[in-house]
Amino acid sequence: MTKTIETNGTSQVDPALLQRPNLALWVNNEKQIYMKEEAFPTCPPDSCVVHVKATGICGSEIHFWKTGGIGDVRVTHPIILGHESAGQIIEVGANVTSFSVGDRVSIEPGVACWECGMCVRGRYNLCPDVKFSGTPPTDGTMRRFVAHPARFLHRLGDDVSYEVGALIEPLSVGYNAVRRAAPYLGQPVVVAGAGPIGLAVALSARAAGANPIVITDLEAHRLEQAKEMGFKNTVLIDMAWDRNEVATKLRAAAGCLPQIVFECTGSEASINAACYAVEDGGTLLQVGCGKPEISLPFMSLGFREVNVVTSFRYQQTWPVVLRLAQSGVFGDVTQLITHKLPLEKAVEALEISADRTSRSIKVQIVDE
Amino acid sequence: MTKTIETNGTSQVDPALLQRPNLALWVNNEKQIYMKEEAFPTCPPDSCVVHVKATGICGSEIHFWKTGGIGDVRVTHPIILGHESAGQIIEVGANVTSFSVGDRVSIEPGVACWECGMCVRGRYNLCPDVKFSGTPPTDGTMRRFVAHPARFLHRLGDDVSYEVGALIEPLSVGYNAVRRAAPYLGQPVVVAGAGPIGLAVALSARAAGANPIVITDLEAHRLEQAKEMGFKNTVLIDMAWDRNEVATKLRAAAGCLPQIVFECTGSEASINAACYAVEDGGTLLQVGCGKPEISLPFMSLGFREVNVVTSFRYQQTWPVVLRLAQSGVFGDVTQLITHKLPLEKAVEALEISADRTSRSIKVQIVDE
Amino acid sequence: MTKTIETNGTSQVDPALLQRPNLALWVNNEKQIYMKEEAFPTCPPDSCVVHVKATGICGSEIHFWKTGGIGDVRVTHPIILGHESAGQIIEVGANVTSFSVGDRVSIEPGVACWECGMCVRGRYNLCPDVKFSGTPPTDGTMRRFVAHPARFLHRLGDDVSYEVGALIEPLSVGYNAVRRAAPYLGQPVVVAGAGPIGLAVALSARAAGANPIVITDLEAHRLEQAKEMGFKNTVLIDMAWDRNEVATKLRAAAGCLPQIVFECTGSEASINAACYAVEDGGTLLQVGCGKPEISLPFMSLGFREVNVVTSFRYQQTWPVVLRLAQSGVFGDVTQLITHKLPLEKAVEALEISADRTSRSIKVQIVDE
Amino acid sequence: MTKTIETNGTSQVDPALLQRPNLALWVNNEKQIYMKEEAFPTCPPDSCVVHVKATGICGSEIHFWKTGGIGDVRVTHPIILGHESAGQIIEVGANVTSFSVGDRVSIEPGVACWECGMCVRGRYNLCPDVKFSGTPPTDGTMRRFVAHPARFLHRLGDDVSYEVGALIEPLSVGYNAVRRAAPYLGQPVVVAGAGPIGLAVALSARAAGANPIVITDLEAHRLEQAKEMGFKNTVLIDMAWDRNEVATKLRAAAGCLPQIVFECTGSEASINAACYAVEDGGTLLQVGCGKPEISLPFMSLGFREVNVVTSFRYQQTWPVVLRLAQSGVFGDVTQLITHKLPLEKAVEALEISADRTSRSIKVQIVDE
Repeated sequence: MTKTIETNGTSQVDPALLQRPNLALWVNNEKQIYMKEEAFPTCPPDSCVVHVKATGICGSEIHFWKTGGIGDVRVTHPIILGHESAGQIIEVGANVTSFSVGDRVSIEPGVACWECGMCVRGRYNLCPDVKFSGTPPTDGTMRRFVAHPARFLHRLGDDVSYEVGALIEPLSVGYNAVRRAAPYLGQPVVVAGAGPIGLAVALSARAAGANPIVITDLEAHRLEQAKEMGFKNTVLIDMAWDRNEVATKLRAAAGCLPQIVFECTGSEASINAACYAVEDGGTLLQVGCGKPEISLPFMSLGFREVNVVTSFRYQQTWPVVLRLAQSGVFGDVTQLITHKLPLEKAVEALEISADRTSRSIKVQIVDE
Repeated sequence: MTKTIETNGTSQVDPALLQRPNLALWVNNEKQIYMKEEAFPTCPPDSCVVHVKATGICGSEIHFWKTGGIGDVRVTHPIILGHESAGQIIEVGANVTSFSVGDRVSIEPGVACWECGMCVRGRYNLCPDVKFSGTPPTDGTMRRFVAHPARFLHRLGDDVSYEVGALIEPLSVGYNAVRRAAPYLGQPVVVAGAGPIGLAVALSARAAGANPIVITDLEAHRLEQAKEMGFKNTVLIDMAWDRNEVATKLRAAAGCLPQIVFECTGSEASINAACYAVEDGGTLLQVGCGKPEISLPFMSLGFREVNVVTSFRYQQTWPVVLRLAQSGVFGDVTQLITHKLPLEKAVEALEISADRTSRSIKVQIVDE
Repeated sequence: MTKTIETNGTSQVDPALLQRPNLALWVNNEKQIYMKEEAFPTCPPDSCVVHVKATGICGSEIHFWKTGGIGDVRVTHPIILGHESAGQIIEVGANVTSFSVGDRVSIEPGVACWECGMCVRGRYNLCPDVKFSGTPPTDGTMRRFVAHPARFLHRLGDDVSYEVGALIEPLSVGYNAVRRAAPYLGQPVVVAGAGPIGLAVALSARAAGANPIVITDLEAHRLEQAKEMGFKNTVLIDMAWDRNEVATKLRAAAGCLPQIVFECTGSEASINAACYAVEDGGTLLQVGCGKPEISLPFMSLGFREVNVVTSFRYQQTWPVVLRLAQSGVFGDVTQLITHKLPLEKAVEALEISADRTSRSIKVQIVDE
Repeated sequence: MTKTIETNGTSQVDPALLQRPNLALWVNNEKQIYMKEEAFPTCPPDSCVVHVKATGICGSEIHFWKTGGIGDVRVTHPIILGHESAGQIIEVGANVTSFSVGDRVSIEPGVACWECGMCVRGRYNLCPDVKFSGTPPTDGTMRRFVAHPARFLHRLGDDVSYEVGALIEPLSVGYNAVRRAAPYLGQPVVVAGAGPIGLAVALSARAAGANPIVITDLEAHRLEQAKEMGFKNTVLIDMAWDRNEVATKLRAAAGCLPQIVFECTGSEASINAACYAVEDGGTLLQVGCGKPEISLPFMSLGFREVNVVTSFRYQQTWPVVLRLAQSGVFGDVTQLITHKLPLEKAVEALEISADRTSRSIKVQIVDE
């Protein structure tokens, strides 16, 4: 039993919207993606039903599709993908007092238990019982209508678009990584990797006053994108360089010794180069996971008091990242979005995202 | 030109002492150690000449002897070994006002430049121009008489023996590691390795309130030593266990999830076990260096926000570690010393230290 | 509707216990305290009913009684006092799975909302909607039977007495203060005030490796108590000394410059002395509140980069403080308890606690 | 004996320059300022002689002049004022290898001893033996030629003007305050006071990602200046408001609860308002000193875990602040400079700076 929509007064849901099919993008355990219609969701008492208006595609979705999982997390049965979304509330759960129908929201996809030791400490990104949208076995947000706990919905300012609302998730990955590394104002850093995560990290690092910021990639078009976003100091990595050569080039580009290298590629070669590029006493910040096993120059790290700090997803980021995005501190974050396709073309959207020749950065699926 | 000894007034050097040969323990680049007599040292204006009364033997000396070096630091010509020493001042440099002849001191072996960026930041253990006693190309303290900069000499309290004064160096290694890991009061930790460094780390961790403390080793006699020092919670590692089994045993012994594992073995197997033993969000603290290259379960570290923090030697530890040792906070640190031999038998002392069947923990070379 | 006691199986409540009156100690807004019988509590679904076996008396209770409040928190209608308690569970709420009848528990008295921004950040001691036992308008634990949310009950180890269980609250105040000040291993500190809070702070500071620890009071008997607990370095403050003289005495007693002064008296004179005693760059840690307005030597604080850090109650302390108390890290904490009286004599217990001539430290009310 | 200028080769000093009188601005202990000619300075072996090209006037100079001192630091005999300077090296000391004649430098005015405990820890702003330019008894930089230790000279980038070089000192005050408060990216802050220090703090806070930033002052023209520098969110304080009203206005302007208030006025009223404006658990950051004694709402600070953090001058700021100023991270810092006068008119420059009707922010004394 949910509050009726009518009681909210301030807003009405267009009846025609509710007639539209609840289309969803599925992946199965045979490495196939496809569209399938879902029933309209029932609304639990602490949740709201959201009409999803914009959803970004993340590399993890490509992994679930093309390789059947990430590490131990496997696609063992069909699930709906998607975790970078914003939309409009069309139904409010019986216990929810903080939202009304018509409210525009960004969806925080990791629903933590709020009871365990990690949640009590505020590190709910490490909650062992988290239900994370679009990560097996939890269905995601690449559908028209989804019910989501109100605690993990965050109101968008009037001047924040759904596209930006859907970018809060990758921007939160960047924010969490920068918070973990805690650069001081004016600290020299390198960001290795200029894909969506690398650029999100660079945006938070710049906003936090890291300086200079050198950004690297194997692909020139990504560095062009970085330059358009204001990151003029770039290094195009040549796969033929060994780790010492890469380190030398990075230090030369910085004009000083980088004290943090944000490693956003997960590649063993890049991680090793980062170990050598970073100043003694500095930090290699690994964003997300790399390969299951990676060999590191351990003696060098130990002799030089270089730390390896890791960052996984995010916690307590939505309010602050929304504020930063709205205030313009990050610059124009929509520059990250290179492609937009309607929900009906979600399969095509994933194909573009998976295709290296598409020169895409962030592909979004949108619905009016 | 140095101040004459007589001008100090308060103390006189026994003339017979000055007649004794300045015996020193050398290592050459043919993996040989031997005693050879040195000239009495000249005293630079900012230094003092110390009669070395006690010197501990460290694993690094065994490495320089048996393998010709550690990483890139190679024994390319004969040097005097030794860096864990205490003794009595017998001559005071012309510029030195803080010491007098007769003062009893512990020697801080790493003479940093005091000018570079690392020194300015207080992280002088990372000074690129450090001259470190007994590490090529700098001669060490395993001799009767040595000149050492006064800035790196630290007065011993009247009730602190030379043996304890010579333990300040390994205790400083432990202190620095614990400071880098920054355990909070009551934080559960594991110390992997119960040799001199592992025990020194355990002493500082206990003094800082880490609780519980589980300590591990491959050798039962070392764990017996740990128990005698009050570390009752031990795990004897079986080389046949895989990293997950080790992790499970460590967690079971702790009775809770260890949030810091102090890795004091440098072994790839132990480091990997530590990665799995530590709680999500925790820290693997690597003391000193391991092998040049080590493979880590990187995806697991990344998913779990486990950091790898490194600790190298020490900075700004002598005053505080001396105070702690003197006040009894560490307990009876002399329990670390299993063997004492006179300077004339320094070669034999190193042989004992290198011999696993000797069941030695810390071997000291002493001189009256 | 609660689970029936019988369904727990493992334990039975003595029917005679349930026949005993639910005696409680009340304070009214006419500065009177008195015993009055309460009904047996009903058990909300997320709570347990506890038979309170031991309750300590805190200075705040004396304030509520003698002065009608603390700052803006006023006793405007009769309430039951008490917030330092341990006891045994005699009824388990319908939703509670983590406890059974018969479980022995320490009660964490501050029931935070678990929803607000402070709770999300883990700083639930600052929750604006906290219901704190025995602080207006919330009834407290100085009664035989009380219902309390299971989330704020913490199991006692088998070898931890109820008396110790009731000390976890004041020990938590000390723990929180020490955590806020974050002394490093071997850092010199002063604890100003040797009452229950000062001693609790000193216990945590010692356990965290602060060294040396100087402890002060205006009353010699309290310093005697401190010495019995192992704090040999004491200064008996003479009210005739000005703040500079106090500071000089404290520095002399420490034998070095204290880098943290834990101010546990709330007196303007003591706080001012602390400002002068602490080393440049150090910290004055104020435990709890002082007077509404206090004059500080602000220019001196500013020129010397001395910080004033405050500590209020505690958050996330019970599990770790219980572990530390059980493991013996604090020493014998029951030395804090100078008087024990049965529940029926609770009024007398408060009178003893309020009477400076009683030489009491911690007075406890107990019930078999 | 110094290196001859000729040996530097790359640059020559114009002989006409050396003929110009070494004019200096003096203050005496009768609250008078006046110009007087100095001899050309001799150059100690570790120093360089600098032709001072730009010097800012700080409020402290006005204090030394108008009130005869600041706190215990009194003008007991005539000294040369000035500590915010940049210029060109015209002579290089015999031991100096890092600079050549012709080098353009910013002068760090606090010459710390480099030997004491504070210096070793890197907190050399607290060095008890610091010689600080223009603070009794040390002569300052308001003169044409001054010798200064090379360690405390910092090279200007080619595109950094002397005016900007002279702003590095006040910008360092702001940087140090922000570093001490350690705002996280997106943390809401208030800067109380829009004079040169308040604006310098605001520049560093903005560069570090604090957001939103509310800035306040009693004078409308200063807030206009702030707006021109991009700080649009301002509050004009009405002296008739009590501290709660001020706090309410600040919170309303922020649109959220400020977690740090940077107090740059030193006024008791402003400091008290800051205590109430800051969110529970937040920080009041006091820049520099206030009055000798200030009354604070101590109970409120204690109940709310609000800390008072202090910041004094700066340490290790020049390299990073120079990099930030050069890179444009701060925006156009020359907007701080409202008046420039030649060295010959230094008395008039101080009069303008002291005259509230002049609407000056930063007045600089320049010399070609």
